[in-house]
Amino acid sequence: MIDPPPPPPSPPIEAVNAPVFSSALLAEVRLASVRGVGPLLRRRLIEAFGDAERVLRTSPQELTGAPGVGPKLAQAIGAAPDEATARGELRQAATAGIRPLVLGTPEYPPRLAQLGDAPPVLYCRGQVAPTDTRAIAIVGTRRASRYGLRYAGELAAGLARAGVTVVSGLARGIDAAAHRACLEAGGRTLAIMAGGLLKIYPPEHAELAEAVARRGALLAESPPRMPPMSGSFPQRNRIISGVSLGVVVVEAARRSGAMITARHAAEQDRDVFALPGVIDNPQAAGCHQLIQEGAKLITGVDDILAELETLEACGVIDPRPNAAVGVPVAPDSAPSRSAALPPLSEVEQRVWEAIGVGPTAIDTLIDSAGLPAHKVLATVSLLELAGRIERLSGVMVARRS
Amino acid sequence: MIDPPPPPPSPPIEAVNAPVFSSALLAEVRLASVRGVGPLLRRRLIEAFGDAERVLRTSPQELTGAPGVGPKLAQAIGAAPDEATARGELRQAATAGIRPLVLGTPEYPPRLAQLGDAPPVLYCRGQVAPTDTRAIAIVGTRRASRYGLRYAGELAAGLARAGVTVVSGLARGIDAAAHRACLEAGGRTLAIMAGGLLKIYPPEHAELAEAVARRGALLAESPPRMPPMSGSFPQRNRIISGVSLGVVVVEAARRSGAMITARHAAEQDRDVFALPGVIDNPQAAGCHQLIQEGAKLITGVDDILAELETLEACGVIDPRPNAAVGVPVAPDSAPSRSAALPPLSEVEQRVWEAIGVGPTAIDTLIDSAGLPAHKVLATVSLLELAGRIERLSGVMVARRS
Repeated sequence: MIDPPPPPPSPPIEAVNAPVFSSALLAEVRLASVRGVGPLLRRRLIEAFGDAERVLRTSPQELTGAPGVGPKLAQAIGAAPDEATARGELRQAATAGIRPLVLGTPEYPPRLAQLGDAPPVLYCRGQVAPTDTRAIAIVGTRRASRYGLRYAGELAAGLARAGVTVVSGLARGIDAAAHRACLEAGGRTLAIMAGGLLKIYPPEHAELAEAVARRGALLAESPPRMPPMSGSFPQRNRIISGVSLGVVVVEAARRSGAMITARHAAEQDRDVFALPGVIDNPQAAGCHQLIQEGAKLITGVDDILAELETLEACGVIDPRPNAAVGVPVAPDSAPSRSAALPPLSEVEQRVWEAIGVGPTAIDTLIDSAGLPAHKVLATVSLLELAGRIERLSGVMVARRS
Repeated sequence: MIDPPPPPPSPPIEAVNAPVFSSALLAEVRLASVRGVGPLLRRRLIEAFGDAERVLRTSPQELTGAPGVGPKLAQAIGAAPDEATARGELRQAATAGIRPLVLGTPEYPPRLAQLGDAPPVLYCRGQVAPTDTRAIAIVGTRRASRYGLRYAGELAAGLARAGVTVVSGLARGIDAAAHRACLEAGGRTLAIMAGGLLKIYPPEHAELAEAVARRGALLAESPPRMPPMSGSFPQRNRIISGVSLGVVVVEAARRSGAMITARHAAEQDRDVFALPGVIDNPQAAGCHQLIQEGAKLITGVDDILAELETLEACGVIDPRPNAAVGVPVAPDSAPSRSAALPPLSEVEQRVWEAIGVGPTAIDTLIDSAGLPAHKVLATVSLLELAGRIERLSGVMVARRS
């Protein structure tokens, strides 16, 4: 006979009634807090060692030599905050209503999870709802004109009324106008912060942040007590586009954060929309440059909604996101517009069949597919993007073998 | 021995010192004045019967049954004004400095001559210079805003300073602002009229018309005494785009003459440029629609000049149009962007060679062609348009066999 195992140690007094965090979660938080371990390196480490706990248990000697890990970084990982420190941080955040969403779990925004550089841990205050997969970001300059502020608001309100979640960065100017108009129209809104959620910036938006947390969520990659730093804004911008189906740039100078968000959106295969303005407004210059580079010029919310309808018709997005409640989306199995030969949607299938085996004129397709011309054109673009067809000229397409 | 032939009859008294018109020219004028004989039917008739004189000598019975000719039209051709009437019209016009330019002769604008529906006779007051092949049209609403008037002027002045001829329609608003600014900047300008050149419309632009005739030309398809009619404006618009390399729409409502000109331009393979504006200006709505349909958004004259430079670099237009003085351009032998396998320009040749025999990434081309990125991209588009290469995806191209 052997002795029964000893009872588990009781939790320390101060932790009674405090939320309980798993070692796996704590390990993710500890690893994410190591300076130099970004989303890409984390992924490599986990591929090499299994999970965050195993990475933290590995000796610096063993870590050194893993892809992308030198002796300095190995030392830094070895010096990661211990479990108690991480637990303390999370408990403090929890008293302010902040909890971590971990990549690969159902609560994590599924569209963001599809990105190669998705944050492993995303701090959240409020709720990310299943309908928030149907989200559009509205971004722009802090130094907005009355025109910019007006249409940031009108577009946000229009999206809210159409049941689309409005995403922005809680900054002064266009961002705040979009969040406010969305809330006033009864919509849901997500604010993606550059700093931690205990360091709301700018401070005068503390009240707006409260309202956003009540009717949506505040989200941040930075740990809760991290102040916003200039380098974290471009990083944050990839999350704004990453959680969204598309990004609307309302007013932006040629060199601005909104332009960075638009570039992230294009790289992430998101739609980029831009509001035109007068050419003597320097804050319209970024929008005009984006349009010259291929962004969609919009003259109202209908242009955005029409694009969403097309994406839905083509099966790129789910028109009834409630159906997806609780279904975790793993990074590798996530649907992607550019995945190799994904199943075709009903509309895509119809256009594909109308193309037939030889080169086909787009005008013929429009006549034969039995769909509105704009849907045929949009579907042709999607099939082309997916590598299923090729455009032989401006007016002819053919299937690709 | 036979008698010597009788001396030719002396010209009538009133014709002494009056200009002399050939029977061929008079026949073109007589045929063009038959209601129902437009440029396309004229071409068919001439293909069927040889030339305008022979068409007019053909009996209505014989004309009936020619492609597109019924008994009514055959009767109308039979009832064409006689030679004396046509001569009288031309003499009257000549006293006002108006002379006919006939399709296929060296004086006729060569770019217009390339069109299938080029007017057989174009009335001209002033001079069409060889440099006028390098022309850009600026068009827009009669009810222009201060913004529209300002930039119509700035664009016209900028084009004038770059040696580009400014084409427009002498209408109120944008057209007049473009002609005036071009003249003030010392440039050449062509005004294409909907009515005849003895019926300047609107009447308050009589003085502007004089200035245009002195530093460019007034041109019209309608006979000199024909008043402008509503149906002649859309017809006129095809000539505005037809004589130009591209059309700039400065301000236009969605349904407007400027939009018709833009559509003609696109059909004629001309560039379409549009100035953006605020979305609450209904006169910007046409411009925004054009941009959504593929027109180039411009924020200044440099965007237009860059495009002209690209066309020149690719050999689509001649950077030194003086070299072409006096060279007639026949409709069939005219250079065309879409002609089958035309010789490649130096730039096109370089890009073509850089593409090599297999699929090539556009980024690789930009690295290897030794040309600025925008020139490579523009040349890729031109080669694609000419059917010489195909785009396999957004980023890959290949030669077409």
